This record gives sequence, structure tokens and C-alpha cells, in this order.
Amino acid sequence: MEQDTSAFLQAAIDEARKGLEEGGIPIGSVLVHDGRIIGRGHNRRVQKGSAILHGEMDALENAGRQPAWVYQESTLYTTLSPCAMCSGAILLYGIKHVVIGENTTFMGEEQLLGSRGVRLEVHDDETCKALMRRFIEEKPELWDEDIGR
Amino acid sequence: MEQDTSAFLQAAIDEARKGLEEGGIPIGSVLVHDGRIIGRGHNRRVQKGSAILHGEMDALENAGRQPAWVYQESTLYTTLSPCAMCSGAILLYGIKHVVIGENTTFMGEEQLLGSRGVRLEVHDDETCKALMRRFIEEKPELWDEDIGR
Repeated sequence: MEQDTSAFLQAAIDEARKGLEEGGIPIGSVLVHDGRIIGRGHNRRVQKGSAILHGEMDALENAGRQPAWVYQESTLYTTLSPCAMCSGAILLYGIKHVVIGENTTFMGEEQLLGSRGVRLEVHDDETCKALMRRFIEEKPELWDEDIGR
Repeated sequence: MEQDTSAFLQAAIDEARKGLEEGGIPIGSVLVHDGRIIGRGHNRRVQKGSAILHGEMDALENAGRQPAWVYQESTLYTTLSPCAMCSGAILLYGIKHVVIGENTTFMGEEQLLGSRGVRLEVHDDETCKALMRRFIEEKPELWDEDIGR
């Protein structure tokens, strides 16, 4: 399914944009199994007053309850390098492949994920970077809150 | 607030029991700041069809959006050793102290937490162990699903 990487990353970007339009934090994610998106999500801190609905968590939640083998065969696409919480969820469910839009505006727990055998594919996507740069410039306090800083 | 440890662990156990009564997985948690419970929760995989609402995550979610300093001054009480996802959330928010009911029926990411400077206080609580032992015996498939196995 490698040929679809850009389409799935685009779907994650579309989710990030949806979040931005809702007044939220522009980070999006999709969970892909067998060439099909089984969960889409975006950060909903603002929209739902949520401390746990980061983009990746929202995508996992929207995928619903899945057996272990589905996660183990899935790829998680996210517009931004996954934080400790989202990385922990990736490890819990044994997701083996994570495609990351960018890790310039925020570096998550890539080292931990790599040390546990998760294959990371980091793109240096200009759209992902532009979305985050603008957001961080406009709402630095909200961004700090989202990453526990 | 050390003298209240058993009362707060009891509050987490009460949450676990509530989960069991609802037909769910008996793991509970409370987030305590300045001697006061600011979030209570229990595993809601069954009740909400949720892949992310472990007990600790539910307690964090129910505490609502908090500034970083509140988490950093808080103690998280949980009936069971925290999995990778919940440990990641603890690291994201910089929670420095975690009180754990037991780690016999499941060993979570205590090593990782310890290596990042989180102070862990593991009780060998008989009630916590009995709740999990009975649950795992009665619903092994559900337990496997909850820990991505």
C-alpha cells in the first residue's frame, strides 16, 4: 500500500484543517488497515475541552474497538511527530508503522518508538509545518497546554 | 498529603468497582491535586466502545483541561500498573508521582516511568488484585483486547 502514502497523509492533513476550522489545534491523523482508513481524527482539546483527544488518540477512538491483529497490521498517519501519550498508545496496541508529516515544530517520542521496533517514516511536509508554525505563533499558550508545558 | 494515600487509593478502587458494576473492566483511577480529587475515572472500553478510555485516561479526561503546573503538582492513583498509553499520558503531562494498587496481574511501563524520574509507589493491594484476577479469569478475551494482546 506504499503507493497510497501521500493520499493517506493528505487525509490526515484534511483532518488537521478541519480542526483549525473548528477553532482547534491543527493536528490530524488517520489509522489505515489493509489499504483502507478505519479511523480519522483531529485534536479536540478546544472543541471538547479534552485533555486526551490528540489527533492520533481521536483517530484510534474513532476506529472503535479492534482486535490486536488489526492494530498490528495497521499504519498510523499523523501530521505531527507523536507526543508521549500518543506514542504510548502506539506501543500499547503494537502499531508497527507510523508515517509522520513533520517533526520540525515538535519532536515527539520518536526515539522511544524506534527503540521498540516501530518503523517511522518522517516526511518534511511543508503544509504540515506551515499549519503548526502559524498556530504556534497565534496561540502559544494553547500549544503549551496541549503538550504539558 | 501522604496520610491520605489509602483514602485516595480507596477512591480509585471505588471507581474500579463502579466499572465492574457497569459490566466493564475493573480498573479505576483518581487524579489528586493539593489534597483534593480533581478527576475520577474508570476503564470504559465496554461502556463506551472506547479504545482509549483506560481508567487513568478517563480520570485525566474528567479532570478537564488543566495548566501544566497542576499536573506537575498532582498525584495519579490507579488500581493497576499503568500500560504504555497511560504511562505516556503521565509523561506528557509531567505527573511526578503515581500510586499503583498492584502490579502482579499486569506489569505496565514502570521501568520507563522510573527512568524518566516519575516516583512510583506500588502497593500490593489485595482488593485490587482480587478484582483483576476474577475479571481476567472470567473474561480473558476482553482483557487481552484492552492491552492489545
